[in-house]
Amino acid sequence: MLIVMQRNATLEQINRIIAEVEARAMHSHLLHGAERTIIGVVGERTAGLEPVFAPFPGVEEVAPISKAYKLTSREFIARDTTIDLGGARLGGPEIFIIAGPCSVESRSQVLETAHAVKEAGAQALRGGAFKPRTSPYAYQGMGEAALELLAEARQATGLPVVTEVMTPELVPVVARYADMLQIGARNMQNYGLLHAVGECLHPVLLKRGLMATIDELLLAAEYILSHGNRRVALCERGIRTYETSTRNTTDINAVPVLKARTHLPVLLDPSHSTGESAYVTAVASAGIAAGADGLIIEVHPSPKDALSDAAQALTPEQFAALVRQARRVAEAVERAAPGTR
Amino acid sequence: MLIVMQRNATLEQINRIIAEVEARAMHSHLLHGAERTIIGVVGERTAGLEPVFAPFPGVEEVAPISKAYKLTSREFIARDTTIDLGGARLGGPEIFIIAGPCSVESRSQVLETAHAVKEAGAQALRGGAFKPRTSPYAYQGMGEAALELLAEARQATGLPVVTEVMTPELVPVVARYADMLQIGARNMQNYGLLHAVGECLHPVLLKRGLMATIDELLLAAEYILSHGNRRVALCERGIRTYETSTRNTTDINAVPVLKARTHLPVLLDPSHSTGESAYVTAVASAGIAAGADGLIIEVHPSPKDALSDAAQALTPEQFAALVRQARRVAEAVERAAPGTR
Amino acid sequence: MLIVMQRNATLEQINRIIAEVEARAMHSHLLHGAERTIIGVVGERTAGLEPVFAPFPGVEEVAPISKAYKLTSREFIARDTTIDLGGARLGGPEIFIIAGPCSVESRSQVLETAHAVKEAGAQALRGGAFKPRTSPYAYQGMGEAALELLAEARQATGLPVVTEVMTPELVPVVARYADMLQIGARNMQNYGLLHAVGECLHPVLLKRGLMATIDELLLAAEYILSHGNRRVALCERGIRTYETSTRNTTDINAVPVLKARTHLPVLLDPSHSTGESAYVTAVASAGIAAGADGLIIEVHPSPKDALSDAAQALTPEQFAALVRQARRVAEAVERAAPGTR
Amino acid sequence: MLIVMQRNATLEQINRIIAEVEARAMHSHLLHGAERTIIGVVGERTAGLEPVFAPFPGVEEVAPISKAYKLTSREFIARDTTIDLGGARLGGPEIFIIAGPCSVESRSQVLETAHAVKEAGAQALRGGAFKPRTSPYAYQGMGEAALELLAEARQATGLPVVTEVMTPELVPVVARYADMLQIGARNMQNYGLLHAVGECLHPVLLKRGLMATIDELLLAAEYILSHGNRRVALCERGIRTYETSTRNTTDINAVPVLKARTHLPVLLDPSHSTGESAYVTAVASAGIAAGADGLIIEVHPSPKDALSDAAQALTPEQFAALVRQARRVAEAVERAAPGTR
Repeated sequence: MLIVMQRNATLEQINRIIAEVEARAMHSHLLHGAERTIIGVVGERTAGLEPVFAPFPGVEEVAPISKAYKLTSREFIARDTTIDLGGARLGGPEIFIIAGPCSVESRSQVLETAHAVKEAGAQALRGGAFKPRTSPYAYQGMGEAALELLAEARQATGLPVVTEVMTPELVPVVARYADMLQIGARNMQNYGLLHAVGECLHPVLLKRGLMATIDELLLAAEYILSHGNRRVALCERGIRTYETSTRNTTDINAVPVLKARTHLPVLLDPSHSTGESAYVTAVASAGIAAGADGLIIEVHPSPKDALSDAAQALTPEQFAALVRQARRVAEAVERAAPGTR
Repeated sequence: MLIVMQRNATLEQINRIIAEVEARAMHSHLLHGAERTIIGVVGERTAGLEPVFAPFPGVEEVAPISKAYKLTSREFIARDTTIDLGGARLGGPEIFIIAGPCSVESRSQVLETAHAVKEAGAQALRGGAFKPRTSPYAYQGMGEAALELLAEARQATGLPVVTEVMTPELVPVVARYADMLQIGARNMQNYGLLHAVGECLHPVLLKRGLMATIDELLLAAEYILSHGNRRVALCERGIRTYETSTRNTTDINAVPVLKARTHLPVLLDPSHSTGESAYVTAVASAGIAAGADGLIIEVHPSPKDALSDAAQALTPEQFAALVRQARRVAEAVERAAPGTR
Repeated sequence: MLIVMQRNATLEQINRIIAEVEARAMHSHLLHGAERTIIGVVGERTAGLEPVFAPFPGVEEVAPISKAYKLTSREFIARDTTIDLGGARLGGPEIFIIAGPCSVESRSQVLETAHAVKEAGAQALRGGAFKPRTSPYAYQGMGEAALELLAEARQATGLPVVTEVMTPELVPVVARYADMLQIGARNMQNYGLLHAVGECLHPVLLKRGLMATIDELLLAAEYILSHGNRRVALCERGIRTYETSTRNTTDINAVPVLKARTHLPVLLDPSHSTGESAYVTAVASAGIAAGADGLIIEVHPSPKDALSDAAQALTPEQFAALVRQARRVAEAVERAAPGTR
Repeated sequence: MLIVMQRNATLEQINRIIAEVEARAMHSHLLHGAERTIIGVVGERTAGLEPVFAPFPGVEEVAPISKAYKLTSREFIARDTTIDLGGARLGGPEIFIIAGPCSVESRSQVLETAHAVKEAGAQALRGGAFKPRTSPYAYQGMGEAALELLAEARQATGLPVVTEVMTPELVPVVARYADMLQIGARNMQNYGLLHAVGECLHPVLLKRGLMATIDELLLAAEYILSHGNRRVALCERGIRTYETSTRNTTDINAVPVLKARTHLPVLLDPSHSTGESAYVTAVASAGIAAGADGLIIEVHPSPKDALSDAAQALTPEQFAALVRQARRVAEAVERAAPGTR
């Protein structure tokens, strides 16, 4: 149950409700939104208690949890959330492009790629240090050594670093080096991890699970926001369907649906959603045309030598062409024009 | 088995192979491509016969049927197929937009919509006369009376008419009124119907089945082409997945995949692939950005009063805005520029 | 809209309603159930008219079409429909097993298989004469010659014949030879064909489409029943999912769901739903355990030589073992015991 | 890369290979199977090194990791793995049934259910202490207090306890109370958690992810086995498809496929795979008929009052009937008979 307080509710009114919640052996947690306060109530039996709390002074609305995500929703916060990162703004009028190798493989590979994507127009550098792999025998990433190389690349190029964190105990380590923490698709419902990044001060890039609905993605984001971290960007990265011509199926509908339902920025990852470099630029352009706030693209100096995801990485030249086209498309859909967003 | 003849194969060489095929109690059918001739061989046992036919004079390649579609493939015909329709060209440099109501409901509705979509920039008029409906008790369309109204709208506006044909015996009736015959998603593998439109002289708009793979769509097209009709356009209209936020999931990947695999024009139907008018323009733009040759859009003078698919129809004003945006996106992806296609 | 008449409604009462329907420019069609009459009303605007017809004498209930299938539902007919076929009863206490080759290939193959499956305990013979194939170049079946061989096998063994009909115009031809007409998965929503078999006197075996929901299967059956043919059996044959370890995914849930929602008999086709002979017996047993009324199994004297579906055909010996196990399972779930069904 | 040693390989031969692996800056980990030793090799570049290691003395086979799971496979260990638990044997001739409430709600609820399922024939008690919930505002379980109640129920009934562990740091806590650790569907690819239970001495119940393939489930199990814990049981619990009539789609094919590919025991969870109590018994019977080694069933003294998953819980009486039927089906498929498994 969520108790939405009126804009001008007093602290006393809020405390009175909390006391009542606890008197009924339930727990409350307080969510101070930019515009109003919500009291989340959890416990064994909250169903049917709406009429009990609705008449309390200062209460605007009491919503059952079937309504699901709340902090994440456009109804709660109408205007777009933006995230400042390395001088650029994710979710703002300009598209925001994150690019880099699937896995960090060596110092020269990271530095070369970082310089190339910076020059081509990227706003941030991605690179995998800890890699979630389906098989225990597959290459699992360089770990902390990779984080050091990413930090060095940031030093050299000024690009902020986005990298995946896989377990709660690694959050402090990764946060020491990275500017934005990525939650991978397989971990979208790893609640311990969502909790950990929710208490962290770093912005989070939350990828949609391979098998997750749009609403489940929003609820996963709600876990992070409800622990205090409001700087979350969502990423459509393809879903699993019966179609086998491409690695995944890009759910392009998810872009306008997410933009309608949430104020959080929305990115598209066409590298994973297609799995094949030949289709990445077309689908990247489609994402921007559909209203995405940005892209995350795998780039490798020599894709055929990549240790992971070789089939989907672009060369720096292909990436530069992609950026040019994506920007033209952004203009075509009047991304930056006033009144259109 | 498909016997691909060399470019300069003689008629005598072809006849010699046909005689050998028949001597082995198999049937051949001859496919004269723009660049070479293919002899399709069907019969009880063609497997393993490739080495028998490969050495014949004039034979370039003998392919087992596991290779699937052939006439439809880019390997067979490298350059884009275009279809002239009402003075415009589907599959050419300019995007081609088909628009109109889901169902023909009345004379005024059709004429009003036809004029509106013409003015907004559509190249063709769509409208359902015979409607495939999941329930036997749902509205099944006006039938031939609707065809007459569509023909009248063509007369009034100059827009060629695209409408669905549902059974083989209706092909001559529908062809009398329409300029392009649509095969609906439910009928993508209705082989009797594919055969019938394959022998027809009208261009065909073949919609992807709700849960058909991209290769099954190409094989369904192959049925039509193998019966002699080469003027086929393919249409992605959304596939069925676990996601329920939208009516279907737009498989945007299918657009560049189809453009790579086939020379046939590719359209996107964002009205059905999203099922909700609020998302149609975003996904239409995405389709053009991804390389689609055109769009098919449901438009109704008063969407809320539509007898079918009310939720997804655009008003004429929304449609006009869609056309403007789609054209800007087409330019952004340099659709018409030389050397890019 | 469906107007359900009371059990004792008079002809006069019925006629009065029909007159009112026509006066409002809608069409009625009359469905005489075993227990009551339903008047189906279709037309441009039936929504909201329930209160108009509810007060008419003889009317029990007026249901909007959003309720979908009606003649097919357990609410309309509570007791199980059974279909007598060749002396056995499909849908009765004993399980009913249809077996035979995917395609009819030769006289000896059909006769040998027919004798073998008869001896092993099958109640009917299946065999494909006209084959729907994804590729136009694949083996399309022997056609009418196959029907003659099937009829000869019936003569020799006494087994009734079940075979697929693919187009409306073939219904009379197939009905001349076969005892039960099969509608294949690809044709589940081929409404012209459903209409044609609905007007035929032969029982129909309706297979679930690869992409169809359970309710869409029931609505497809409703098309047949609403045209007068009540002897329809439904068949779960696997659905398309992301899992590729088996040809399709057997939706075993569909068996108890269908048994709860409809009075029509329910069969399982584990040959297609698994696509691999090694798994057919296990899944066949699962189907009977879940409450299916019978099975349809592909059997070939020499599976490795089969012209189609070789991977999934059982040998006669494997089939005999399957029948023995399926019968033991039927007993274990107390199929024939009174009060359990 | 996996280096499979010959059965009679010496320790010296093994050490020589490990030295060579390390000399090439790769890591080895040693897997001592019942019948032979495997050296797993991971590192930046293992591809193409097979010919280097194949000639070493004592090496039987060098397999690239594309072959995926190894310790889990029937090729590696041919005979069925069994897990002794509370005096019964999971994976043995008798079916093994785990039953209990979705969530532990109170002392009386757990004790009452434990006694009831014990009497009805269950071999183990399940009950959720820490609940993974899609929404942060949903009931999250009683936590450690629930573990104490489960331990008390074990004391009272002798039933071993199966309960879910959600994060690596909770493994020691849960292991203090439980006899078997469950990894839930959402955590099937939570590699930190798989690692943690892999180093634990408790048996593990690994549930298939909602949209995981069969091979991904086997690879997830491989993570656990490769960390030393061989006592893993797999559980099919329904997959996500387009069908919405049931909560999930029971992939019954997965049962015989898993039994063919792995030596690990296979359970079915029809409570989650159907989501509706009316279908649980039919699908439970189907699972046993298909070859499952056991079942996991949600039982609640008063399902309508359950705090979670109320729709799918059985009453104790319904559960007792399910056990009786499942045992009869097990006999019908000759589960315990020699030579059939």
